[in-house]
Amino acid sequence: MQIKVNDNEFQLFVGEKRILEHSKERPMIYVGVGQEDVDMYRGNFKITDYVTERFPLKLTDVIQTADTVRLCFESYIIAKIKCDENLCTIDFEQKDDRINRFWFRVAADKEEKCYGCGEQMSYFNLRGRNFPIWTSEPGVGRDKTTYVTWRSDVENKAGGDYYNTNYPQPTFVSTNKYYLHVDSTAYADFDFRNDSFHELQIWEVPKQIRIECADTYLKLLERITTYFGRQPKLPDWVYNGLIIGVQGGNERSFGLLDKTLDRNIKVAGIWCQDWCGKRVTSFGKRLQWDWKYHKEMYPDLPKKIKEINAKGIKFLGYVNPYLVNDGELYKEGKEKGYFATKADGSDYLVDFGEFYCGVVDLTNPEAFEWFKDIIKEYTLGIGIDGWMADFGEYLPTDDICLYSGKSPMIEHNHWPVLWAKCNYEAVKESGKLGDVVYFMRAGGAGSQKYCTLLWAGDQSVDFTIHDGLASVICGALSAGMMGCGLTHSDIGGYTSLFDNTRTKELFLRWAEMAMFTPFMRTHEGNRPDTNFQYYDDEDTMERLARLVDVYTMLAPYTKTLVEENADSGHPVQRPLFMHYESDAKAYDIQYEYLFGRDMLIAPVYEQDKHEWDVYLPQDEWVHLWTGEEYHGGEITVSAELGYTPAFYRKNSEFADIFEEIREKYGVK
Amino acid sequence: MQIKVNDNEFQLFVGEKRILEHSKERPMIYVGVGQEDVDMYRGNFKITDYVTERFPLKLTDVIQTADTVRLCFESYIIAKIKCDENLCTIDFEQKDDRINRFWFRVAADKEEKCYGCGEQMSYFNLRGRNFPIWTSEPGVGRDKTTYVTWRSDVENKAGGDYYNTNYPQPTFVSTNKYYLHVDSTAYADFDFRNDSFHELQIWEVPKQIRIECADTYLKLLERITTYFGRQPKLPDWVYNGLIIGVQGGNERSFGLLDKTLDRNIKVAGIWCQDWCGKRVTSFGKRLQWDWKYHKEMYPDLPKKIKEINAKGIKFLGYVNPYLVNDGELYKEGKEKGYFATKADGSDYLVDFGEFYCGVVDLTNPEAFEWFKDIIKEYTLGIGIDGWMADFGEYLPTDDICLYSGKSPMIEHNHWPVLWAKCNYEAVKESGKLGDVVYFMRAGGAGSQKYCTLLWAGDQSVDFTIHDGLASVICGALSAGMMGCGLTHSDIGGYTSLFDNTRTKELFLRWAEMAMFTPFMRTHEGNRPDTNFQYYDDEDTMERLARLVDVYTMLAPYTKTLVEENADSGHPVQRPLFMHYESDAKAYDIQYEYLFGRDMLIAPVYEQDKHEWDVYLPQDEWVHLWTGEEYHGGEITVSAELGYTPAFYRKNSEFADIFEEIREKYGVK
Repeated sequence: MQIKVNDNEFQLFVGEKRILEHSKERPMIYVGVGQEDVDMYRGNFKITDYVTERFPLKLTDVIQTADTVRLCFESYIIAKIKCDENLCTIDFEQKDDRINRFWFRVAADKEEKCYGCGEQMSYFNLRGRNFPIWTSEPGVGRDKTTYVTWRSDVENKAGGDYYNTNYPQPTFVSTNKYYLHVDSTAYADFDFRNDSFHELQIWEVPKQIRIECADTYLKLLERITTYFGRQPKLPDWVYNGLIIGVQGGNERSFGLLDKTLDRNIKVAGIWCQDWCGKRVTSFGKRLQWDWKYHKEMYPDLPKKIKEINAKGIKFLGYVNPYLVNDGELYKEGKEKGYFATKADGSDYLVDFGEFYCGVVDLTNPEAFEWFKDIIKEYTLGIGIDGWMADFGEYLPTDDICLYSGKSPMIEHNHWPVLWAKCNYEAVKESGKLGDVVYFMRAGGAGSQKYCTLLWAGDQSVDFTIHDGLASVICGALSAGMMGCGLTHSDIGGYTSLFDNTRTKELFLRWAEMAMFTPFMRTHEGNRPDTNFQYYDDEDTMERLARLVDVYTMLAPYTKTLVEENADSGHPVQRPLFMHYESDAKAYDIQYEYLFGRDMLIAPVYEQDKHEWDVYLPQDEWVHLWTGEEYHGGEITVSAELGYTPAFYRKNSEFADIFEEIREKYGVK
Repeated sequence: MQIKVNDNEFQLFVGEKRILEHSKERPMIYVGVGQEDVDMYRGNFKITDYVTERFPLKLTDVIQTADTVRLCFESYIIAKIKCDENLCTIDFEQKDDRINRFWFRVAADKEEKCYGCGEQMSYFNLRGRNFPIWTSEPGVGRDKTTYVTWRSDVENKAGGDYYNTNYPQPTFVSTNKYYLHVDSTAYADFDFRNDSFHELQIWEVPKQIRIECADTYLKLLERITTYFGRQPKLPDWVYNGLIIGVQGGNERSFGLLDKTLDRNIKVAGIWCQDWCGKRVTSFGKRLQWDWKYHKEMYPDLPKKIKEINAKGIKFLGYVNPYLVNDGELYKEGKEKGYFATKADGSDYLVDFGEFYCGVVDLTNPEAFEWFKDIIKEYTLGIGIDGWMADFGEYLPTDDICLYSGKSPMIEHNHWPVLWAKCNYEAVKESGKLGDVVYFMRAGGAGSQKYCTLLWAGDQSVDFTIHDGLASVICGALSAGMMGCGLTHSDIGGYTSLFDNTRTKELFLRWAEMAMFTPFMRTHEGNRPDTNFQYYDDEDTMERLARLVDVYTMLAPYTKTLVEENADSGHPVQRPLFMHYESDAKAYDIQYEYLFGRDMLIAPVYEQDKHEWDVYLPQDEWVHLWTGEEYHGGEITVSAELGYTPAFYRKNSEFADIFEEIREKYGVK
């Protein structure tokens, strides 16, 4: 990378490409003053801004030293720039306290594509749209033209839109072969709607903007994860089979485990999210947010865990960083003063939908340690080997006081990372890193290091593009570009509202995709009784046994991908262009993915399909189920239930595994 | 009014109230640069703005002369201020061409209420919301929480919102006893959300801001209408009875007239909107937009008109300023070059929903004259005494070239006034002003003078607050504050979509309100066959005969109100505070109105009601139907169908009329 600077102008180049430019005609920075209005309802935010001032900054002075260039922008901002071959950092110093809005323009060209901004569920390529960076509920429906979205909006302000995500991150990767990260957890909005520039809006002057380049996307991912950290490897036991999501107490849960095993479905673990007890709300079955095992529902759970461990099966639970105000732990935390409060010192309780919780103040080191201890003692301590580390998106912003003294507008996006770190340290300090897996939906810059596994959040139980099966593919690809290369999703989706219910077909299509991800896990959903469950249908169990078996047969290959993610930051699910950089079409595909270097998966994400259109980059591909060979291009293949289009590279060193799968389970 | 000015500060006072203020800390003017994005679909607009710059202006110089003060705001703007006892005008001179956004702050206080911004259908008091000023379709449903709105949005981008209106105007009346008008037809947004100021956004530097004050609201209305002009009186024949909206050709239309007369419903006129022919679209029955009588559907119409005229009944038609591209007049206009074109000179056709029309270029004096001649010849010339002068809101803004050379962004809001003027001159030059009535839904600043009667647009056929019966009360009050004091509405509403259909109850509740307006007219709606029609139901015709008779009995009183509107600009339908200025509650009432000085009407705007809560200011009130006396306050009265709560002042000089009505039609 290279900078050019004179009295009035500044430019940054990546190779021949101008990435940044400032001149009188094309200012790089605008600053201003805004007054935000933030309205939260159960994790759904309505945020508006009244910008009273916005103006471009003039470059008024340039000071060059040996290793830095200092750009002075009037009396408002000093930008200290360091640049070497692959990395440019711009540190900002704010000189005028009044400024609380910052817009930064990045030079763009029309053909350029951009990816990232965290885990994006609707659009992989960000060009043509703007993306608010604010962790929140992802929305139910996420598409204003659907009935479910409209009803969710009207009844719960919860419909959401294309950009809503549990895991936003102020970072993007450009096809000009660089990534750019803004070091700020303030509200931001990355706008990719303009042909000649991207405009990054941040509701503070950020500490730093970091731009790093590389010759290849693989190398870029290595650099991204060198900076943000890398996810650890998954424990070996996850490859033993399915994680079954069941609940309802000892009898029901372990009864369903027995039934599942009886039908020859390999099981790696049983995930009982209601290990802590349950409560019923109008939304559906919810949990008792007091993170100890429920002695009535799961009597002698520690003993029970030992029993199933002996059979090679793990037990997984559920934890989140809130405590319900009628629980024991809340009482303890309140006595210790570990919850965030209102400005007047009184309790701050968050409405989670017919129950109210205290916010454990993770900025208070003592509270943080206390919550780690809760996980260590009540979860890890009784032999639980994994859990859903839910939530993290709900830090309210009105009238809430935190130990750190920082504004909740700054801590809000930071919260998921604090929550990930809390889990990480609890596991690491217990000596269990690598043996335990917790999965999170919330994230932010830094999640990479602290989050053992993402899960894609609470999809609707349908085939909709913006909130169904398809959306988790986009989510995996975009999170992967951020260096979060381990993710998975609830097989069959989660949210069933307004008569939208899960079908057998949806469950099976989702499961047949999940076998080509690092982790296979079912979920009964928010309304188990009215939605399709695999254990109610003998045919489904037979089919599922086959799919899980394929997953376990793939394990030697999948493990190498998970290791590569841990070692180099190359995601397990990759966009096609990551290995086919010269293939222009590859950059627009968001519903196919490479499962590592050697497999291409094109999941069927629509209902009632028997064949499927697939795009293959130029290579020697073998169809997993038929053995038919392809050399690239647009093809149509048979895609009956259970045979989602999957291909492997003919010369793969794992070809024998793929052939073995075909022999056992291929189309005869 | 009084101004105070020194080197750095400027203030304008109305009495003790500071209305304008500029200081370094509280700048009065912000300017900036924006790029709008305007997307029109069948009269529904999606407008967004990308404001790249916005900054406050400093007062840098003050030049005082005998009768003016010139305020220089840096190198951007000079404001030339004239001020006398009741009027302050500020003329702006723009010094920097780059500026295309202008924000003007008006000092406010928390208790202040504001009214106007044209005809507002959802909120009479504007405080707490912003109001874009842009003429458009008003929306179907106008409330994002209703099913009809959602479906309209999804299928036609047509759901609308609280601020959508056919008749916006950049003018408001403050309870600080002044009106403020911005002399600009550019897109504007009046923002009343702040406690201490109103912010008026205009997408150009306006020519002038005009502030005029008065001691009373009546006097203020006189001044408003002295400036904008006043609506002429209605012809006497309108008071003869109902205008029946029927269609379908000679046999059906005149057959229904006979049936109506046969049931003793007094009829003033028959309104056949399809006098020009019809076309059927998926929306419903539409018209043949070629403004001559249809020789197959209405053979010998001129003769037929003479026949009914002889019986004291008028004939009304329909015209709008577009011409369908398969019609005769379009052909003629195109040959003459009277249509707006694309930039490259090719035809510009507007999509009106499965048919396409040319835009008669009303800025071309020859085209304007030609269209006047069309009205004179084909409408007035065959004896038509009234018509719906529909539309005016659809001037597109993309790639359209006008004779005036002005931007369509400037002409768009001007179009309804040009259209009103075209009708006005056609009538006036034909010597028929006072004999003819045309009614319009579109409007703008200046409509007051040129529009003989407003109608409230295309309500949904329901009781919804934002698009049903109630909304036309709010519309009448707000239009009245602008000096458009003659309005009425389609009895029973118009738009029936998505299984929303008119009921008998709705029709009758609407009709019983309409008798207390200056004009009673029915409409079959967009889907006549599936909606309730009065002529299908004997009971309704009996009830309607009574309501129309009351309307005719009220005529001596109503006429004085219409005259007062023509002479002084006092609207026929008035908010309660107009005559009860010291009554604080009166300022918040938007669903009751004074029908002139002596009547108070509280229409039942919900279904299935048998009694109704009414607020009466302190006065001597007599209930029209029972004769019971009230002295003000909150009361509940019986409100059976046909007996909408109506009161008159005991000492009214028209008391004998009201008593006569009670004797004939009151509760026995």
